[in-house]
Amino acid sequence: MTHFTDLLDGYQRFRTADYRRQRERWEQLKDGQSPKVMVIACSDSRVEPAQIFDTLPGEIFVVRNVANLVPPYETTPGLHGVSAALEFAVTKLNVEEIIVMGHGACGGAHAALTEMFHDAAPGDGGFVHSWVSILDEARERVKAKFGSGPEASREMELETVRTSIKNLRAFPFIPEREQSGRLTIHGAYFGIAHGELWVMGEDGEFSSQLKAQAA
Amino acid sequence: MTHFTDLLDGYQRFRTADYRRQRERWEQLKDGQSPKVMVIACSDSRVEPAQIFDTLPGEIFVVRNVANLVPPYETTPGLHGVSAALEFAVTKLNVEEIIVMGHGACGGAHAALTEMFHDAAPGDGGFVHSWVSILDEARERVKAKFGSGPEASREMELETVRTSIKNLRAFPFIPEREQSGRLTIHGAYFGIAHGELWVMGEDGEFSSQLKAQAA
Amino acid sequence: MTHFTDLLDGYQRFRTADYRRQRERWEQLKDGQSPKVMVIACSDSRVEPAQIFDTLPGEIFVVRNVANLVPPYETTPGLHGVSAALEFAVTKLNVEEIIVMGHGACGGAHAALTEMFHDAAPGDGGFVHSWVSILDEARERVKAKFGSGPEASREMELETVRTSIKNLRAFPFIPEREQSGRLTIHGAYFGIAHGELWVMGEDGEFSSQLKAQAA
Amino acid sequence: MTHFTDLLDGYQRFRTADYRRQRERWEQLKDGQSPKVMVIACSDSRVEPAQIFDTLPGEIFVVRNVANLVPPYETTPGLHGVSAALEFAVTKLNVEEIIVMGHGACGGAHAALTEMFHDAAPGDGGFVHSWVSILDEARERVKAKFGSGPEASREMELETVRTSIKNLRAFPFIPEREQSGRLTIHGAYFGIAHGELWVMGEDGEFSSQLKAQAA
Repeated sequence: MTHFTDLLDGYQRFRTADYRRQRERWEQLKDGQSPKVMVIACSDSRVEPAQIFDTLPGEIFVVRNVANLVPPYETTPGLHGVSAALEFAVTKLNVEEIIVMGHGACGGAHAALTEMFHDAAPGDGGFVHSWVSILDEARERVKAKFGSGPEASREMELETVRTSIKNLRAFPFIPEREQSGRLTIHGAYFGIAHGELWVMGEDGEFSSQLKAQAA
Repeated sequence: MTHFTDLLDGYQRFRTADYRRQRERWEQLKDGQSPKVMVIACSDSRVEPAQIFDTLPGEIFVVRNVANLVPPYETTPGLHGVSAALEFAVTKLNVEEIIVMGHGACGGAHAALTEMFHDAAPGDGGFVHSWVSILDEARERVKAKFGSGPEASREMELETVRTSIKNLRAFPFIPEREQSGRLTIHGAYFGIAHGELWVMGEDGEFSSQLKAQAA
Repeated sequence: MTHFTDLLDGYQRFRTADYRRQRERWEQLKDGQSPKVMVIACSDSRVEPAQIFDTLPGEIFVVRNVANLVPPYETTPGLHGVSAALEFAVTKLNVEEIIVMGHGACGGAHAALTEMFHDAAPGDGGFVHSWVSILDEARERVKAKFGSGPEASREMELETVRTSIKNLRAFPFIPEREQSGRLTIHGAYFGIAHGELWVMGEDGEFSSQLKAQAA
Repeated sequence: MTHFTDLLDGYQRFRTADYRRQRERWEQLKDGQSPKVMVIACSDSRVEPAQIFDTLPGEIFVVRNVANLVPPYETTPGLHGVSAALEFAVTKLNVEEIIVMGHGACGGAHAALTEMFHDAAPGDGGFVHSWVSILDEARERVKAKFGSGPEASREMELETVRTSIKNLRAFPFIPEREQSGRLTIHGAYFGIAHGELWVMGEDGEFSSQLKAQAA
């Protein structure tokens, strides 16, 4: 089991190996970041974008929350964390691509589908329940089509990606840049069971990136 | 420059190497996650917790947003993303430690200190401005003590950690678990310029973890 | 500059990270090795087979000497180091493939081509001179065709592979196994200047494995 | 099971990841190698120095043969592979340290101790038998002291290191450099069963480098 002391050991490894081996890269990163890609992923400990995409420091600007959700565009006062990150990445850092990545066995998607925390108080599931209400519309579609079996679970997980992308496009600065070709949005899905990555096409359907040799 | 196609190449590397080399680990992760540590870090592309702490899939549950902020505890209706992640990690996954990690050259801390987006509309800095208002109190303390030079910048970055930890403790389920010894909270700070990790003591002061040999 | 103390630091990283992450693999390796591949490579610090082929512990049985040479088959008494390794790998471990890998900027091939240590005493180049006499025949071919410019250097490096493979086949237990399909021999060449790997075809010519995307 | 095609896949990973990430290092290595350390290790697939010491390309000049043996100093004509590598590393590359690393479960040490290939023909164990005759003296010492149980096996493995170091010092250019402080020789032993590295002291005894935390 990993604890903070293990993380500190891990830091010593990072510092004596990776950091020194990329000294030149870090020299450049001192002066600022200029990632071209933003990734919105789940907080789940199994879906680390830097691991799944084998990236280097400085390459991806990352938001992680329960179920990789982008809330609807709202300008009412309040603490809009995802909106702030999005605004910063797109309009200040000028990222050129945004990837929303869902995943299999997602606890947040499960909570959305089952409404398991329906009556829970804050601190007992209530916060999760409110947060995944972003998926309310998607849930109704999924249940209408698939009921509540395993197919529904997977569909719900894919819907986290589709819903977030739909919400992304409600931020005026997004479609504006998409139309002028300065920004592209991608959907992806990591199937934990087989380590399989799926990429969403323009039709909203997902296709596997797993090559035969690696199966 | 890294784009989505590079990430897909990276996925092929991950799938043919790391994934296969940790087949046993992934076999266990299929059935669910059980991380013992939650990390709250900045979205900045240079401060990837999995890289800095050299962790494995399944080891850390991660929230990432602008300036690694935990908003104040609020039970008013709304989409509280960090609260949902916190509730899920602490009360459902039973993580035993939470690490809040700030970092040097933080754009969010800079925006808080300078109020540079004070009059900006949503989409032009307004979302960032609202989000970093979480740091309003801290900013006043920092400016009173350090004015607005480089010392103030660094202090503001350390304040993101202290403020988030203070806010964490306003969630009733946090101090409850801290007092019974089931949960520990740590503050950390990654200085990009020298790859130096600092850890916060009980007095709120930070001490370097950089060993002589790795300097 | 790397010294033994750095290697000991490196061991601590290996032990706390890679070793633990492959615990299951090491559990199996405790009881014995069963590599399917033998690699004969140069001692040069830049051509580490485990790095270039990204292999794991237990995967390749490795001989390394100056210029990746296999001496001619000889049964006269004496200390035949490569013959011993070959015999052990092929007839005891039953490896199914042998790869001989040459490389660019090879000091041993250079010494063979230029005969620079022609009159050198043992300890002053004499041992190298004797050792690379394995390439005497090849040198004459190379010089006849290419003189002594850069083309000759490269051809000499490729000849280290062809000569070693020819010598391999003089060991009776090699062609015997090749003919019955139990053993395959491959030639390869690592061009340091561009990190390009070349693989030898049945005609003795080498073709690049560098894909466009990685160039 | 790993075959040549897997090695070629591994090369693609190396080329698209490690090679590109160390572009600056490879730029320097193009012009020549200047390792400060030479490692003499066994061909066994489980004891890869670059993995155990977590080194980078260019850092260690490596000889690998059965049982990590250095033959006695001989100036009679012949193909002295280890002598050539040693001469090149010490007198041409000016390495400052030589490490001889033995290991547990060593097939070569086992063959030396048991004389299992005593009557074997070349190609059937005869080459191995001749090669490990370098250890004849050591075997007698070991058998006199430990008989032939597991203690004897381990002692025989340690003796491969001590014998090689003794033989190293018969090469005139070695003690000459040791005495003037330009060269240091180290003995090491990798215990496969627990991933434990042992380092030889001046008294020829080995002490563990395994720290409590990594056990």
